[in-house]
Amino acid sequence: MVDQGRPVRVHVAANPASQLASEFTEARIRASAPPGVALSFGASPADLAEAEVLLLTGQMPLDDLDRRAPKLRWISYTSAGVEWLLKLALPPRITLTNASGTHAPKAAEFTLTAVLMLNTHLPYLLTQARAHRWAPRAGGTVAGKTVLILGMGALGGAAATALARQGMRVIGNSHSGRPHSAVSVMTLGDGFRAFLPEADFLVIALPLTQETAGLIGRAELDLLPPHAGVVNIGRGEILDAGALAAKLTEGSLAGAVLDALPQEPLPPDSPLWDTPNLVITPHCGLYDPTAYGQRCLEQFFANLHRFRNGAALEQVVEPARGY
Amino acid sequence: MVDQGRPVRVHVAANPASQLASEFTEARIRASAPPGVALSFGASPADLAEAEVLLLTGQMPLDDLDRRAPKLRWISYTSAGVEWLLKLALPPRITLTNASGTHAPKAAEFTLTAVLMLNTHLPYLLTQARAHRWAPRAGGTVAGKTVLILGMGALGGAAATALARQGMRVIGNSHSGRPHSAVSVMTLGDGFRAFLPEADFLVIALPLTQETAGLIGRAELDLLPPHAGVVNIGRGEILDAGALAAKLTEGSLAGAVLDALPQEPLPPDSPLWDTPNLVITPHCGLYDPTAYGQRCLEQFFANLHRFRNGAALEQVVEPARGY
Ligand SMILES: NC(=O)c1ccc[n+]([C@@H]2O[C@H](COP(=O)([O-])OP(=O)(O)OC[C@H]3O[C@@H](n4cnc5c(N)ncnc54)[C@H](OP(=O)(O)O)[C@@H]3O)[C@@H](O)[C@H]2O)c1
Ligand SMILES: NC(=O)c1ccc[n+]([C@@H]2O[C@H](COP(=O)([O-])OP(=O)(O)OC[C@H]3O[C@@H](n4cnc5c(N)ncnc54)[C@H](OP(=O)(O)O)[C@@H]3O)[C@@H](O)[C@H]2O)c1
Repeated sequence: MVDQGRPVRVHVAANPASQLASEFTEARIRASAPPGVALSFGASPADLAEAEVLLLTGQMPLDDLDRRAPKLRWISYTSAGVEWLLKLALPPRITLTNASGTHAPKAAEFTLTAVLMLNTHLPYLLTQARAHRWAPRAGGTVAGKTVLILGMGALGGAAATALARQGMRVIGNSHSGRPHSAVSVMTLGDGFRAFLPEADFLVIALPLTQETAGLIGRAELDLLPPHAGVVNIGRGEILDAGALAAKLTEGSLAGAVLDALPQEPLPPDSPLWDTPNLVITPHCGLYDPTAYGQRCLEQFFANLHRFRNGAALEQVVEPARGY
Repeated sequence: MVDQGRPVRVHVAANPASQLASEFTEARIRASAPPGVALSFGASPADLAEAEVLLLTGQMPLDDLDRRAPKLRWISYTSAGVEWLLKLALPPRITLTNASGTHAPKAAEFTLTAVLMLNTHLPYLLTQARAHRWAPRAGGTVAGKTVLILGMGALGGAAATALARQGMRVIGNSHSGRPHSAVSVMTLGDGFRAFLPEADFLVIALPLTQETAGLIGRAELDLLPPHAGVVNIGRGEILDAGALAAKLTEGSLAGAVLDALPQEPLPPDSPLWDTPNLVITPHCGLYDPTAYGQRCLEQFFANLHRFRNGAALEQVVEPARGY
């Protein structure tokens, strides 16, 4: 099917402060764009006057879009977490899409890495090694152990598949409770709580929404067995890091790997840096610089083709549910 | 086949200082022994006077066996590394078997964990985190990357299978060059050197022998690309840890995970504890306390059945080759 008619006006804005900015350079985007696309570039709100589509990386001031961007009908955001965009209450004529799923292969590998590290007591051994202590601690393989995954979307689903391939029992949790091939038991909503006591590992792969903010606090962590390990690849605000740190310090939880932190960058004086049995990766565990930008642009231009043909977009965010 | 005739005299010696001693208690061994076995227990050389078979955990004084253990024909050692036993030059009437392969499932998982950690820049991120530095570093998945495994016995072979399942290209190296299903290129002897420049990861799973002692030194490490990571699950003496530390410190090698160290326990004042981008696990990564002892005893009693029937034993060490 050939796109017809006048060119579609796509504005590209990449905040240079974003880790991802170097993926979305003018040269790369011009090289990947199909014919019939009028491209403009710049991260100022004034640039949006004529744009119908905004390809957005990182944050830019997006208030007052009714006046500033009267023709805008679609924002394609090149990350998965859109909580800040939803807070802006975009005009209903604007569809928001995100990069849900673009991280999936690396997310699967990172979650596998984190669960294997917890299973090998790596956070404990690393804490001992910082104190120059030779303190062996061994354990069985992950096969047959239970992992509870909160959020079974693109990331949680890919992680479930990778963990099930290691012979693990996967319990899933999502909004809808939709079945997933790698999952033994699927739960929805609050249903995950009943499974916390049998979780050897808890993986958080949720988006940040009104419902998920603060979802995992002291009470939930207390339901985990003391040998359990926690992984957060979603958003820092979903997990009470203070409660986690207290449990790690008192030894009522074995270890944790956090790629999403309550404050990013985590300030040098945060007590989390010195919390025992805690491994911090600075929000880079899921990012694959060898594939991410290319995959994002392919998804964007495939969606742009749909947009021009009046077809339904993919990766659409539903503001009402918050992801 | 039913074992006939007089009972076979098996002496069990477990050095209480060994990590494994608690696996081989008198109660457990009595409970697993078949009929027709006369068991005795104790870690003194004097106990060996009547023994035909010695089931040995950890070290015990084994000099002068001609006089002390005139009837001994078989030592079954419950670990894989037998270098200290071979130094004793056992009388030729005594067959030595070891626990080669008993660690395999955990070795596969540990090596996978270590390679995934290196691929995610975990050693670097952990070093930064010790200094409270938020310093993201990302990379692609392991699929398509190359791992060179030195030693393709029970451990290296199991690791190869686990890594190939992640889509990695595995180059193997062994004494014989015997093919292995998970390996793309098999090398033997010195043949591994030609592949060091294309190794993203180097895994050492060799036994310590006269040929392997000091095998990987500065010259070999210099052939690796600077982004490479090194894993040692064999023996500390195979790898020049000083050369490794120098390269990690100067940044000409990306990271390393060592489960086998040049000195064990590593003393608190060893500079290795503070070497950047180095993860130390205190020789516990391959040990599975939930399965090891049981698996060892099953292998021992299966071998004992062969011994009583004059069949060839399994897991036999060949003193001439050193493993
Ligand atoms: N660490 C990083 O670098 C990084 C990178 C990318 C993304 N992320 C974070 O990861 C999040 C998930 O990404 P994704 O691509 O997997 O998103 P996704 O495909 O939209 O999946 C979200 C999942 O969460 C479930 N969910 C939402 N609200 C829930 C609730 N209240 N209770 C239970 N389940 C709920 C959804 O349920 P349904 O299946 O029923 O809809 C869905 O399974 C992103 O929002 C982002 O914040 C982090
Ligand atoms: N970190 C730990 O906790 C831990 C636990 C268990 C064992 N280990 C160590 O791991 C070692 C290997 O264990 P395993 O059970 O895999 O032993 P294995 O089954 O005997 O295998 C040894 C492998 O090394 C190869 N090899 C020997 N000398 C070589 C040389 N000079 N050059 C190239 N290849 C050589 C052998 O080649 P062929 O196949 O041609 O014979 C074989 O593939 C043990 O000896 C022990 O020191 C460490």
